[in-house]
Amino acid sequence: MPKYKITIEYDGTNFVGWQRQENGPSIQSSIENAIIKLSSEKITIVGAGRTDAGVHAKGQVAHFEINKDIPLDNIRDGLNQHLRKLPIAILKVEIVDENFNARFSAKLRSYQYRIINRRPPLTIDKNQAWGVFKKLSISDMKKTAPLFVGKHDFNAFRSIDCQSSSSIKTINSCNAEKINENILINVSAKSFLHSQVRIIVGTMVEVGKGKIKIEEIKKIIESKNRNRAGPTAPAHGLYLVKIEY
Amino acid sequence: MPKYKITIEYDGTNFVGWQRQENGPSIQSSIENAIIKLSSEKITIVGAGRTDAGVHAKGQVAHFEINKDIPLDNIRDGLNQHLRKLPIAILKVEIVDENFNARFSAKLRSYQYRIINRRPPLTIDKNQAWGVFKKLSISDMKKTAPLFVGKHDFNAFRSIDCQSSSSIKTINSCNAEKINENILINVSAKSFLHSQVRIIVGTMVEVGKGKIKIEEIKKIIESKNRNRAGPTAPAHGLYLVKIEY
Repeated sequence: MPKYKITIEYDGTNFVGWQRQENGPSIQSSIENAIIKLSSEKITIVGAGRTDAGVHAKGQVAHFEINKDIPLDNIRDGLNQHLRKLPIAILKVEIVDENFNARFSAKLRSYQYRIINRRPPLTIDKNQAWGVFKKLSISDMKKTAPLFVGKHDFNAFRSIDCQSSSSIKTINSCNAEKINENILINVSAKSFLHSQVRIIVGTMVEVGKGKIKIEEIKKIIESKNRNRAGPTAPAHGLYLVKIEY
Repeated sequence: MPKYKITIEYDGTNFVGWQRQENGPSIQSSIENAIIKLSSEKITIVGAGRTDAGVHAKGQVAHFEINKDIPLDNIRDGLNQHLRKLPIAILKVEIVDENFNARFSAKLRSYQYRIINRRPPLTIDKNQAWGVFKKLSISDMKKTAPLFVGKHDFNAFRSIDCQSSSSIKTINSCNAEKINENILINVSAKSFLHSQVRIIVGTMVEVGKGKIKIEEIKKIIESKNRNRAGPTAPAHGLYLVKIEY
């Protein structure tokens, strides 16, 4: 039974998130339904990152197995045809080894967070960026980003709903750049705690506003206290951009 | 009575266009209603470009006069407060000379058209770009762009609904650039015929597909025959980016 790896783009605005849930449409169930229509086989797909409601993806990855032998291009075009009413697109389909697991084989997950820093409210980019109205110091944010890199106990930077048994994670890279009104924050790690990127971003924005000092970041990490870190940045500014294997 | 110039950004997706109409909400009427709420004065605003339904703006300009004396920042923030449920934002408010007219004083109007050239359908950029699935030759499109520059009779490049008495227009600049999957076409002129930019783009895409040859462009312009030019590109890829005075 061949195993397929799919690379997926989606606008997460009107979904309950990646994972199948009782309370509304998920990306996972939408794609599973499209695969069932294509292959007439009941399957489950496994995704690399379980993005929350409102979070977008430009390079989510999932795997599944079907018995039916369908050429790769036909799988891509067929799934896109079945998904055409939804803001979900299959960018690429590949055959992978039977040992490949989209979730557990992932070596690096890269997220990008997009802030638009200006006084007027957002229009065209409303659900695609976090509009921060107070002027942010990009130089302070740039200095803050590398302080998260490395192996740390990120207990102060995880949602109270996080079910991970350990809060120790290794951030491979973290940086901030400004392009016109846009502030882009890029964070990569093998794996993340629940809401970790959004709490890192929320904390960096507090530094940008001058509410948290750069020198405090180390102490906030060491405190392991969620109340010491900044607020959770809204979901709609976050993009899962790449999974590396 | 002071005259105000406002610079406006909007997502045109759910509007009938800039101009007030019977059949649905327009950008113009939405802003007029906000000004009435702010100043309690019944006014009419004059816009620089009458964008069609679905067309976006990053730098539309309009003017209006009110008697009430309100600081410029309060006009901007007050209008944005009244517009908060709509994807319309006032970026800037300035006081202008009594002779200023947003429509007739404009010296240069700049539009940008955004194409995403890829096989999978669009998701995040669904209403913000034209998804063209057939591979386009960017080098042929780049060579075509300058052929529209200069003073020409653009009768082949205007909508049958165009009410302009003359179809002679002067294009100041026209170019195409490719950034990853995006093809951006930039066109500037003092003024345009109805749908002129969208028909130029539709024709350039036919060249990119190999359906119209670069050598034919001059003949198509000279024919003055709408049927010889390409189709009208969809509204949702078009952005009014700048008005210069």
